[in-house]
Amino acid sequence: MKDAFALHGAVAFSGSQERIETFEDAYVVCEDGISMGVFRDLPKKYGHIPVEELDGMLITPGFVDLHTHAPQYNFRGQDMDMELIDWLNRCSYPEEEKYADPLYAERSYDLFAEELYEGPTSRACVFATRDVPSTIRLMEMMEEAGLVSYVGKVCMDRNVPEGCLEDTDRALEETEEWIAQTQDRFENTYPILTPRFVPACSRKLLAGLGKLSEKYHVPVQSHLSENPKETEWVKKLEPQASFYGDVYERCGLFGTPMPAVMAHCVYSSEEEIRLMKKNGVFVAHCPDSNMNLSSGIAPIRRYLQEGIPTGLGSDVAAGSSTSIMKAAVEAIQLSKMRWRIQDQTRKPLTFEEAFYMATKGGGAFFGKAGSLEEGYEFDAVVFDDSNLATMTETDTKGRLERMLYCGDDRNVCSKYIRGRKIY
Amino acid sequence: MKDAFALHGAVAFSGSQERIETFEDAYVVCEDGISMGVFRDLPKKYGHIPVEELDGMLITPGFVDLHTHAPQYNFRGQDMDMELIDWLNRCSYPEEEKYADPLYAERSYDLFAEELYEGPTSRACVFATRDVPSTIRLMEMMEEAGLVSYVGKVCMDRNVPEGCLEDTDRALEETEEWIAQTQDRFENTYPILTPRFVPACSRKLLAGLGKLSEKYHVPVQSHLSENPKETEWVKKLEPQASFYGDVYERCGLFGTPMPAVMAHCVYSSEEEIRLMKKNGVFVAHCPDSNMNLSSGIAPIRRYLQEGIPTGLGSDVAAGSSTSIMKAAVEAIQLSKMRWRIQDQTRKPLTFEEAFYMATKGGGAFFGKAGSLEEGYEFDAVVFDDSNLATMTETDTKGRLERMLYCGDDRNVCSKYIRGRKIY
Repeated sequence: MKDAFALHGAVAFSGSQERIETFEDAYVVCEDGISMGVFRDLPKKYGHIPVEELDGMLITPGFVDLHTHAPQYNFRGQDMDMELIDWLNRCSYPEEEKYADPLYAERSYDLFAEELYEGPTSRACVFATRDVPSTIRLMEMMEEAGLVSYVGKVCMDRNVPEGCLEDTDRALEETEEWIAQTQDRFENTYPILTPRFVPACSRKLLAGLGKLSEKYHVPVQSHLSENPKETEWVKKLEPQASFYGDVYERCGLFGTPMPAVMAHCVYSSEEEIRLMKKNGVFVAHCPDSNMNLSSGIAPIRRYLQEGIPTGLGSDVAAGSSTSIMKAAVEAIQLSKMRWRIQDQTRKPLTFEEAFYMATKGGGAFFGKAGSLEEGYEFDAVVFDDSNLATMTETDTKGRLERMLYCGDDRNVCSKYIRGRKIY
Repeated sequence: MKDAFALHGAVAFSGSQERIETFEDAYVVCEDGISMGVFRDLPKKYGHIPVEELDGMLITPGFVDLHTHAPQYNFRGQDMDMELIDWLNRCSYPEEEKYADPLYAERSYDLFAEELYEGPTSRACVFATRDVPSTIRLMEMMEEAGLVSYVGKVCMDRNVPEGCLEDTDRALEETEEWIAQTQDRFENTYPILTPRFVPACSRKLLAGLGKLSEKYHVPVQSHLSENPKETEWVKKLEPQASFYGDVYERCGLFGTPMPAVMAHCVYSSEEEIRLMKKNGVFVAHCPDSNMNLSSGIAPIRRYLQEGIPTGLGSDVAAGSSTSIMKAAVEAIQLSKMRWRIQDQTRKPLTFEEAFYMATKGGGAFFGKAGSLEEGYEFDAVVFDDSNLATMTETDTKGRLERMLYCGDDRNVCSKYIRGRKIY
């Protein structure tokens, strides 16, 4: 038992989609970065490990952000009255061009990494830009911040402005070199193949990325069926594809051979959903973004029922906040609106389901992560919720729900990732 | 010029529904509690008034909360997976009963008043409980907090649990006594007649309150057409009424003779909308609540187009936050979902419109409030947004939008209400 310790306080984690396990007073034991489980009384064999007393605190798993854009952090909360394609052209692309400047990238990514460091997120899938040097710098910063993350050099060779556009062969060469440089370099930071989305990627580029994915065993992240205008555009650009995701599928980028996480999936067709299920494609549900860009409401209840692996994404800066606690609340709220207005056949999401997606659901993309159960990698957040307390006494589940609805980064007291206290 | 001063910094206020007036560097002059306007250069006649230098700060009008429930603050962010009627029975009514205990009321209302004191809200319409002594205590606390507020002793004589139920005559007597005790007692705090909602109020009670409204010139607040089950219930309870608001109208509680503010108006019929327009009934749009209780999306674009006076409400605790900045963002987001899913004939709300509702729109219920234009009561919030700054420089409008999307009470540096610095 080389490196063991325990946290002692109130504990909550997601047992399953339907159930949150709570303990008013318990010990969470970590050994060599892995959870040994949660115990009402500390087992004898752990009798002499250090115990951090967290009286009055609430201990949860780390939160998982399955979809965010580091270079967009600069303009969050601004120019929000647009739809996706206009917003990309007017806000995202012009900003992303700036990351060819190392000093600009350094300063910007530092703000982003600092924000994730301080909040309750322990793991993230991050889009960078097409620029390799600044993408590597971002990976270094994420490593320093202590989070576990996949970071992607973005690839795009059509329908984007000159400053973002890449030559197809060069994009593939640069990506391969970048994988070689970063694949074994970090402890907690990994490259992920990142075609921007079908409208910005030729078949040749996608097929090349698919080959790199297989050759180097690198997973994939992209966007899928987000917005009506975007999906119409994909139909025009790729008339021979049966559906949006079929373009990724034909190029080996849709969950096989390597795992893939697709952001949004608001307008996935029956065929697309079938293939997502078959291939185990992860859905990154980004409710804040889907509202801000007027995209619509994704059928998340359906995905959960089908057993499609589903987590949450902040989608900064189409989402204005990096908080996955906020995303969990918005996922519930949007599902209620979907139920009320669009589809009364499927019930709204429950708090249990939203918390599951925010932790264990998204965590599954990283292996055994997002829970405090025995055998999971030990990512834990310690919350001080004393500023949210009122005259109404509440149990641990109530405190957890209140934390997600009313809390913020101020409540994060400390954070452990893979057993290491990083904050 | 007895009591004059100026604030000097970046300034933003709502000129109209369509337009936000911004100044990168200007002076807002206050004289005897009234704004003398915003000036790029300080006019000579104000040459020797004190100037508060707010370099780098953002000055806006105070935010206006047209609908909130003080006794519900205790259980905000908990048990949110319910619809309105279940939620009232299981959460609200049992909690509200506790306010008969003066000590419980004292401690609880203190938390609520402190929260409003520290945030960007300058004016509010507040529901208390049926209990008069604690309602008066809440009024004292709101007065101490420095906000301008209408506070209502709630009336309800049917379909509520024993602990909340009132005898009709006694409710009216108590209300009349309470008006007498409080109407002229405070500088910034006023009584407002507060029938809970039609399902909880007999015709006799409503008619009696209507008479009190006319006799004492006291305005009215209540709930209207919030949730499908509630509106169906009203139809059954009041079969002779043409529509929900018609019940209030027949009792003199629907904007005439005295002003009325009605929360929600999600399911207002054509007839109801016509009468709201005719009577100048204020709509308190509460997007957070409407999501949490699965109520639906109110047709706010329509209300603005019709010229129906419309502001925002936090509706704590069906809304989990007291922030009207958050309500403004959610109003935009929900309007985008309404446009996308429900009604493509009316465009989503713009940021300009949401900011208008959050300040000047709601402020109109209080007279000339919610703006920094000449002649308005001087309610101002000074924001320090340095923690939100990034590498992207932005103008005052961008800073304002970012403040509403990404800021919170931490950013409130100081607050002036009716010319008095209260924070």
